[in-house]
Amino acid sequence: MPRYKLTVEYDGGGLVGWQRQDNGPSVQAILEAAITDFCGVPGETVAAGRTDAGVHARGQVVHADLPKAYPPETVRDALNAHLRPAAVVVLSAAPVADDFHARFSAVGREYRYRIINRRTPLALDRARAWWVPAPLEVAAMAEAAQYLPGRHDFTSFRAAQCQARSPVKTLDRLDVAGDGDAILIDAAARSFLHHQMRNIVGSLRLVGEGRRPPGWIREVLAARDRRCAGPTAPAHGLTLMRVVY
Amino acid sequence: MPRYKLTVEYDGGGLVGWQRQDNGPSVQAILEAAITDFCGVPGETVAAGRTDAGVHARGQVVHADLPKAYPPETVRDALNAHLRPAAVVVLSAAPVADDFHARFSAVGREYRYRIINRRTPLALDRARAWWVPAPLEVAAMAEAAQYLPGRHDFTSFRAAQCQARSPVKTLDRLDVAGDGDAILIDAAARSFLHHQMRNIVGSLRLVGEGRRPPGWIREVLAARDRRCAGPTAPAHGLTLMRVVY
Repeated sequence: MPRYKLTVEYDGGGLVGWQRQDNGPSVQAILEAAITDFCGVPGETVAAGRTDAGVHARGQVVHADLPKAYPPETVRDALNAHLRPAAVVVLSAAPVADDFHARFSAVGREYRYRIINRRTPLALDRARAWWVPAPLEVAAMAEAAQYLPGRHDFTSFRAAQCQARSPVKTLDRLDVAGDGDAILIDAAARSFLHHQMRNIVGSLRLVGEGRRPPGWIREVLAARDRRCAGPTAPAHGLTLMRVVY
Repeated sequence: MPRYKLTVEYDGGGLVGWQRQDNGPSVQAILEAAITDFCGVPGETVAAGRTDAGVHARGQVVHADLPKAYPPETVRDALNAHLRPAAVVVLSAAPVADDFHARFSAVGREYRYRIINRRTPLALDRARAWWVPAPLEVAAMAEAAQYLPGRHDFTSFRAAQCQARSPVKTLDRLDVAGDGDAILIDAAARSFLHHQMRNIVGSLRLVGEGRRPPGWIREVLAARDRRCAGPTAPAHGLTLMRVVY
């Protein structure tokens, strides 16, 4: 069974997330159905990041074993033909060694969180950004963000249902940048805890609103207690941008 | 009846366009219903640009006469409260003189058309950009675009149903720029003919694909015959960006 690495884009709105679930369409189920339609055998996929309901991806990576070897362009185009009109697209397909594993071989993951900070609600960006109406101080958020990169126990930013064996992770990068009324928060790490990015963003928002000083983020981190951090930011502002191998 | 100028953003997907119609929800009907809910009298609005079904706006301008004077922030916030969850938002409201007319007082309109040029279909941008899979030569499109600014008879780029008295318009600017796999086409004019922008973009695409040389655009313009131009580009790639008074 030749193994293929698929780079996948999806609009997470209306999907229950990466993982197959009973309560609605998942990226995994949609993609596996397309593989089944294309190859005539049940498709099975493993993703680098099991994104939550509503989270988008520009560069999710998935591996799948196909019953025979096809030219990579054929895999990409045939899957896309079977995927339409779903909001899931295969950007590229490449043959990989049998020991390539989308999840365990990954050495880096990059996420972007997008806030739009303005008084009025969002029409054009409502499905792709978190609307925060209270004025945010970007410089304070950027200062707070600088306390988080490095190897730390991220228990304070970890979802209760997180299944990772250890809460200790190395955050390589956490950048906050303003762009008009948008605030972009870019993070990179080998791996993330469940809700880690969304809990960080929810905490940075409290700093941006002036309800907490930038240094408070350091205290939250040190407390190792989820109750100390801010509320979880909504899923639809988050996009998995890239996975590095 | 104090007159207000409203700057409005909307997602044209799922709407039948600016103008009230029997076959579905229009921006005008949604906005007038919000005014009626807020003021208790029937709302009436006039827009700078009567955008087609599917066309978006980041800066449509509308005027409306309200039964009494309110603080502008109250108008904006109250209308937005009544508009939710519609994909129509009032970005700002300002009192204006009784002779201000959103359509006739406008001296400039700016549109942006967005193409995404890549082999694979669009997941995240499918409602906001035209997917063109064949490779496009941006430099050739930009060269062709430079034949169009100025005062010309734009009959070749005018929809059959266009109601303008004259096909002669002055196009102030038509810029084509690549941005990753996106191609942005920005146009500015005092006013546009019906489908003028979309017919120009449909023609530039033929140049980008190499099916016509850049200079062909000049011949199309000179022919004054709609049958000479390319097909109309789809509505969902077009956004009314700004109206100038």
